Formats: sequence, structure tokens, C-alpha cells
Amino acid sequence: MSAVVNFAKGEGAYRVLSQADIIAEIAALPGVAGILGGKPSEWSIRDVADGYINAVFIIDGPDGGVCAKQGLPYVRYHGESWPLDETRAFYEASYMRRLEPVVGRLAPKLLHFDPVLQFIVMEKLSPHVVLRGALIEGRTFPKVASDIGRYIAAASFHTSDLGVPFERKFDDIALFSGNKSLLRISVDLIFTDPYVEVWRNRFVPELSAWAKAFREDTELKTAVAIRRNAFLSNRQALLHGDLHSGSVMVTEEDSRVIDGEFSTFGPIGFDLGAFVANLVINWYGQAGYARDEAERAAHRIWLLDQIAVLWNAFRAEFIRIWEANPDAGGDGYPAAHFADPAGRARLATIREQYVADIFEDLVAFAAIKIIRRILSYAQVADFLVIEDTQRRAEVQANALAFARAVLKDPARFRDFGAFLDAIPRFEGTPLDPALAR
Amino acid sequence: MSAVVNFAKGEGAYRVLSQADIIAEIAALPGVAGILGGKPSEWSIRDVADGYINAVFIIDGPDGGVCAKQGLPYVRYHGESWPLDETRAFYEASYMRRLEPVVGRLAPKLLHFDPVLQFIVMEKLSPHVVLRGALIEGRTFPKVASDIGRYIAAASFHTSDLGVPFERKFDDIALFSGNKSLLRISVDLIFTDPYVEVWRNRFVPELSAWAKAFREDTELKTAVAIRRNAFLSNRQALLHGDLHSGSVMVTEEDSRVIDGEFSTFGPIGFDLGAFVANLVINWYGQAGYARDEAERAAHRIWLLDQIAVLWNAFRAEFIRIWEANPDAGGDGYPAAHFADPAGRARLATIREQYVADIFEDLVAFAAIKIIRRILSYAQVADFLVIEDTQRRAEVQANALAFARAVLKDPARFRDFGAFLDAIPRFEGTPLDPALAR
Ligand SMILES: Nc1ncnc2c1ncn2[C@@H]1O[C@H](COP(=O)(O)OP(=O)(O)O)[C@@H](O)[C@H]1O
Ligand SMILES: Nc1ncnc2c1ncn2[C@@H]1O[C@H](COP(=O)(O)OP(=O)(O)O)[C@@H](O)[C@H]1O
Repeated sequence: MSAVVNFAKGEGAYRVLSQADIIAEIAALPGVAGILGGKPSEWSIRDVADGYINAVFIIDGPDGGVCAKQGLPYVRYHGESWPLDETRAFYEASYMRRLEPVVGRLAPKLLHFDPVLQFIVMEKLSPHVVLRGALIEGRTFPKVASDIGRYIAAASFHTSDLGVPFERKFDDIALFSGNKSLLRISVDLIFTDPYVEVWRNRFVPELSAWAKAFREDTELKTAVAIRRNAFLSNRQALLHGDLHSGSVMVTEEDSRVIDGEFSTFGPIGFDLGAFVANLVINWYGQAGYARDEAERAAHRIWLLDQIAVLWNAFRAEFIRIWEANPDAGGDGYPAAHFADPAGRARLATIREQYVADIFEDLVAFAAIKIIRRILSYAQVADFLVIEDTQRRAEVQANALAFARAVLKDPARFRDFGAFLDAIPRFEGTPLDPALAR
Repeated sequence: MSAVVNFAKGEGAYRVLSQADIIAEIAALPGVAGILGGKPSEWSIRDVADGYINAVFIIDGPDGGVCAKQGLPYVRYHGESWPLDETRAFYEASYMRRLEPVVGRLAPKLLHFDPVLQFIVMEKLSPHVVLRGALIEGRTFPKVASDIGRYIAAASFHTSDLGVPFERKFDDIALFSGNKSLLRISVDLIFTDPYVEVWRNRFVPELSAWAKAFREDTELKTAVAIRRNAFLSNRQALLHGDLHSGSVMVTEEDSRVIDGEFSTFGPIGFDLGAFVANLVINWYGQAGYARDEAERAAHRIWLLDQIAVLWNAFRAEFIRIWEANPDAGGDGYPAAHFADPAGRARLATIREQYVADIFEDLVAFAAIKIIRRILSYAQVADFLVIEDTQRRAEVQANALAFARAVLKDPARFRDFGAFLDAIPRFEGTPLDPALAR
């Protein structure tokens, strides 16, 4: 009567695949080999693992390419001294499969998953680049913010009590409840570590006073605790769980969400907040990059615009899907309860309130994610590229001061205009937190 | 990579057990047979299934007795035309096993579970009686309200993000997410059916105008929808899921919770609200019983007192357990975040707020459960014993009017005194809802 059936693990012997092994694995998959074309001896393979966690390769053949990813039994970037359940690839593949019917071409296509080797083969994205790096270079992409807004709308609606009967949702919850090793990382790195002293924390020494101030701020830790509990208990919809600008690949015309290994059920605002946090981080980071002043100013205006575009795209798409699917069978608001004119009118109000609540969550989770990327483990290139650590710390202090204000005084940020307005006001925050607002 | 591993079902052939089969099953279990004593030929077995759903028997031997329960592939009371997954016995047994270490003697001891036959053997409770019947007779029990308050406190704390690391909670969630057939009954009978026309609804014709008024009350259905969504999405703790007065067996000194087959993760206020609803139902029902007026008045005062006793016992015990377990490892409020004097003081406020939020849920769920027992399927003896259906309808209209006020005007019921005060004020509600407050 044991609860813990590890269906994430296939029966057989796991082993870490070499490049030659990967070629052999793919050669044995007719569908995938067909995409590459030619013979295995004509294929090339290269390591593209710029992520922190897994082995990732691009394999090219005469006709085309694919991307292969393997979950390792440890954190790749850190090494074998940080063990990590390799079955994370199962959750990433499950996330892609679950969402493919609803997000379509907003994610790469899953071509193959092997549960013994924890080995994923997916569509190669080309000529896509990872959004984070492009933003650091000051590049802009006209469609990405609205694409991500629509992605989150579709993914969350169709996995929530609005979009599916609870039986389907409970099956999904049972599956993703197994993704514990990765969720432990989220819980620790996002919600715990920034507010305590722990070996993994990676902030620059110039930020020590800010880190100490955060560790001693009961008000702030209380605000974080509210969201931490919501993250663990509010099973609103299936989340990506790590939707930052490093999990998005783009071209001018196309945007794709990758890397769903942190997927979990939680509050919809968490994914939105993660993406917003990374736009805000890039906004603050810009001050530390050597760049023409007018260019910088233009890029920053573009960034703030994108936050608004993301939210508006999410909001419009979420409500559109809801309205377009009155018979989705979700148990949240049964159609029969709101079928008369008063009911239909009320449902419109309910929808507005539903997205307004998501907005409140977005704002708070964005702030928490900003803090986490500055004080905790796995920092972001947007700040790391600023080599002068004093300058980096100054820029980070701005972002920290903003995030703190958002968490401690949420009433000021109920309106999106106020949220965007406030971002520039925290530039020039002193490195001594006692002197900051 | 299928999510749906039915670990609730053993491998083998399920069959409905006859009384002789049950004797044979038990004879093959040395531990259980030892409790009965003597030889199987000396044992007696009798059907005690006064519940709606399962086969339940008491088996007595020379030395003692046990209770045996089997999940049938249909709803016993309704017959084979209402199929129902027999694996509900697995969830009932899992619920008992999960909680035994924390609720101890507040539940009968699980002696055996067979996943092929969906067959449970548990401690026989004797001379216990089912609380509902005893309340209808006007009997009182000094300990039951505080015992149930303490039961819910222990069960919910130790399965929440306060009492266990989320990994443990996610394992529990994965397990109980499988309990879909029973949860479908909860969702439909409690949250949907009372507000629509459906074959299962069972109210007396004299209540038709009230039922119609409820079906047409958008405000009311909106208030219900908020709790319905919380019931499905807020995975606060492991719930019994059907904790009414028919799920409690008592003596003067002892109280036991039985019948956890509806167990699911949800808001703690749901279990509290279920029990409170049934005390309120009994309070209103008393007006329909032939009884000495002074006796009735005394019993009613006792009932209102018990609601307060239940809440105070829950509240005190929940906070006591929380304070006594600073290192439980729950991820909700990490000890390291609240370790200094300000943090410890804040934690006291957080605890108060936590139980205050549970109270708000309690009140709303109690109202929803009252409505459900009057308008939907599976009505309760407290009302059914009133044979004059006109009188029954009058008494039920009182309860409906009270429940409606609670749901539509929650601000009036934030304080427990106001909640108790209001109960008698709704006596004498007219059978024409248009004339009611
Ligand atoms: N489908 C793909 N097509 C092309 N490149 C990809 C694809 N998926 C990932 N990559 C590249 O591999 C890198 C690491 O992948 P990612 O999924 O982020 O790994 P990790 O889980 O280790 O963070 C990405 O930053 C990107 O450069
Ligand atoms: N452990 C027990 N000891 C004695 N009698 C019991 C025990 N458990 C159940 N019963 C009796 O059997 C009846 C039905 O059990 P219950 O668990 O409520 O079944 P159902 O799931 O069908 O509602 C109870 O009302 C009670 O009278």
C-alpha cells in the first residue's frame, strides 16, 4: 500500500551518455534519424549546455538537426558533490507532452523520451537565441512578450479547474507531485536561502549589508512566507516553474519556451512573476553595461513596455480562452450555475476578479524572484557581466530596494502603472541600506 | 509514461464477500482471529451497514469483536445502477494509516487491509453509538466536541506545510489524488446539485420555492463557487472529507472518527465546517421532534455550546501543536526565518492569523454543508425523522435561511459569537422565501 511508486524511472540501467552514445541512441530512432538525414557517420554533435543543470547537445545531419538533453544524477554546473535526481527529465518530458496540445508552436516539439536513460530528444530551435543573452546585448524582439503571455494563459487555463474536470487535474497533480528534488531547489533557493546565511548564497561582498538587512527584516520574511505557502498549497494550474529569460528562445518572429523540468502545480502568478522579474533585472542591469546613453534609454523603455505587453497579452488571452470554452468541463465555475443573464453577467465579473488576483500574485512573486537572483545561488548573467563588483552591487541594490518595497507595501502596487512607474525611482539606491528608502 | 498507475487496486480478482467469506477471510488472519478468540464456528456476524455506501459487518467471538468493511462496486443504498469505484476502501485504509500516529485513540485501530478485496478490518467500537442518532434522541456527550476539535487539529497540522516537509506532503497528495470517484460525489452533491435541477436531489415538495430561490440566486452561487474553488485548489492539509455526526462514534468518555473514504487534501475549515453544520442541523431539527419544551431548550443550549467548544478546542490544540513542534520540518514558516525575538513575536501573530483564516473557511463550509443536506442527495436523519413533511420543510427553511445569510453576508459572521447568536434568529422563517429575510 506504498504511496511512492516511482513511475518516473524506467526499468533498466541508467548511465550517463557520451556523445558517441547519443549518436547511437538517435541512430536507433528512425523518426529522429530521418530528421537528420544521411548516415550517423555524417552527423555532428556539440555540447550546448549553457544551463546550470543538465547535459544538452545539438546534433546536426545533412537534412536537419535535433536537440538532445539528459538528466544527470547531479547538478552539472556544480558537479557530483551536489546530487540531483536524474528523473527531472521525466518531468520535463511530461510537461512538454501535457502542454503540447494547448501551446502548440510556442514550445519545441518533443520527439522522444527514454525513461531509463532520462533522455529527451526535441526539435532543434534554429536560428533561435536564448532571450537572456540577447537582452543583455540590448536586442529587442517584437513578439516575445505577447507570446509568453499567451503561452502562460493557455498552459494555465487548460490545466486549471477552469479548463479541465478535476479528475484530469488530479491525475496531473499526482504525476507532478513526484517532482520533489527540483521543487526542493525552488523552495530553498527562491524562498529560503536569500533570508538566511547558507553556503550556496553567492552575492558579492559589497552587498553584505543589504543581505544582512534582508535577513533581519521580519516584515519582509512574513510577506515572503505568505507566497511561499501559496506556492506550496495553491494548486491553481500547472506551472513551468522556472520561466525566466534563459528558458525562452527567440527569433524576430518566433518564441519558444524550453526547460520545463521545474514544473509543478502552483499559483499562475508564479510563472508570470518569474518572467517579469527577469525583465526588471535586465532593466536594472542595463545601468552597468557600457553602452550609448540613448540606446540604453530606448532599450529600457522597450523593457518596461514589454512588461505591460506581457500582462495585457496574458490577461486578454486568458479571458478569451475562458469565454471561448464554456463547456470545457472545469469544476471551478460550473456552466449550469451561471447560465441565466444574471449568471452570465456575474461570470464576467468573476473573470475580472480571477485575473486581478493573479496580478497580485505576479507582483509579489516577481519581487521574490528578483531577490533570489541577487542573494541566492544561480545568479544571472544580466548582473554577472558587470565585472566591477562595486558597480554590480550598486545596480543590484536598486533592484533589491524595489523588490522590498513591492513586498512590504503591496497596496502601492495594485495598479500596473504604479508598478512600472516605481522601477526607475529606485535607481541610485545607496549601498548602505540604512540610507535607502 | 502514463500518469495513472492504479496503485489503489491489488493484483487479483475482486469479489463481493458474503458473510461466510468474511468469516473465512478473518479466520486466515491470525492477529485478527486472536482478537475474536475461539474457533470460527463460534463466531457470529451481523450486518450493521446503516451508512449509505459500503458493506459493514460486526464479527463477534468469545473474546472480542472486530468491524469489517468492504468497498462495493456500487453505492450500497442506491444499488448497482449507481456504480462507484470499490477502491474507496484503499483510501479509507490509507487515511487511517496516515493519521494513526497523530490521532491515536481518536479513531478505531486499523487491523487489516486487503487491496484485492478492498476489505478493511478494524477495531470494533463498543459500547459506542453513532453520534447522529444519539443527538436526535437528545443525548449529550461531554467530550465529543473537544475530542473532534483536537482530532482535526492533529490530523491537519501533521499533514500540512506546518507539520511535514513538502516532500512528505507531496507523497500524500499524490496518493490521495487518486480518490477521484468519491471526490466527484463531494463536488457534485455538496457544491453543484443544490443549485441546479438534477434527478438526485431529494428535498420535499414543500421546499420547492426555496430550492428555486437558491437556483436563481447568483450572489449565493458566487459565494459557493469561491469555496468550491478553494476545496479543489487549496491543498492545505489532509481532510476526512465527510466529518459529519454520522462519522463519529461516542461513549460518555470516548470519541472516535470513522469512515475516512472521502479523504482528500483541502482547506482545514472544510472538516470543521462539516461537523459544525451537523450540530446546527440538529439544532434546527429539534423543533420538529415531539419533546418536552424544557428538555429541548436545554439540548439546544448544549448544542450551541458544543460548537464553541469544538472551535476553541481546535484552535487551542492547533496552536499548541504548532508551538510544540518548532522543528517539525514544515516548509511553510521555516524556523530559521523567525528565530530572533521579532521573528518569534511575529510567528505568534502568524499563528493567530492562520487560525482566523480557518475560521472564515469553517463558517462558509458549514453553511454550504447545511444547504447540501437539505436540497441534495443523501439527506440526514435529523430532518428525515420529522414525518410531517410540511413541518420538516419549515424546519429546513430555517436552516436554509441561516446558511444563505452566512454565505451572502460573511462580514456579519466574522465573530463566532455573532454566528451562534444568529442561529436562533432564523427560526420561524416562512416557507415562502420571498417573505423571508
Ligand atoms: N530545443 C533546443 N534547440 C536549440 N538549442 C537548445 C534547445 N534546448 C536547449 N537549447 C540550448 O541548450 C541550453 C541549455 O538548455 P536548458 O534546457 O536551458 O538546460 P538546463 O536544464 O541545464 O538549464 C539552452 O540555453 C540553449 O542554448
Ligand atoms: N469500528 C466500528 N465499530 C463498530 N461499529 C462500526 C464501526 N465502524 C462502523 N460501524 C457501524 O457501521 C456503520 C456504517 O459504517 P460507515 O463507516 O459509516 O459506512 P459507510 O461508509 O457506508 O457510510 C456505522 O454507522 C456504525 O454503526
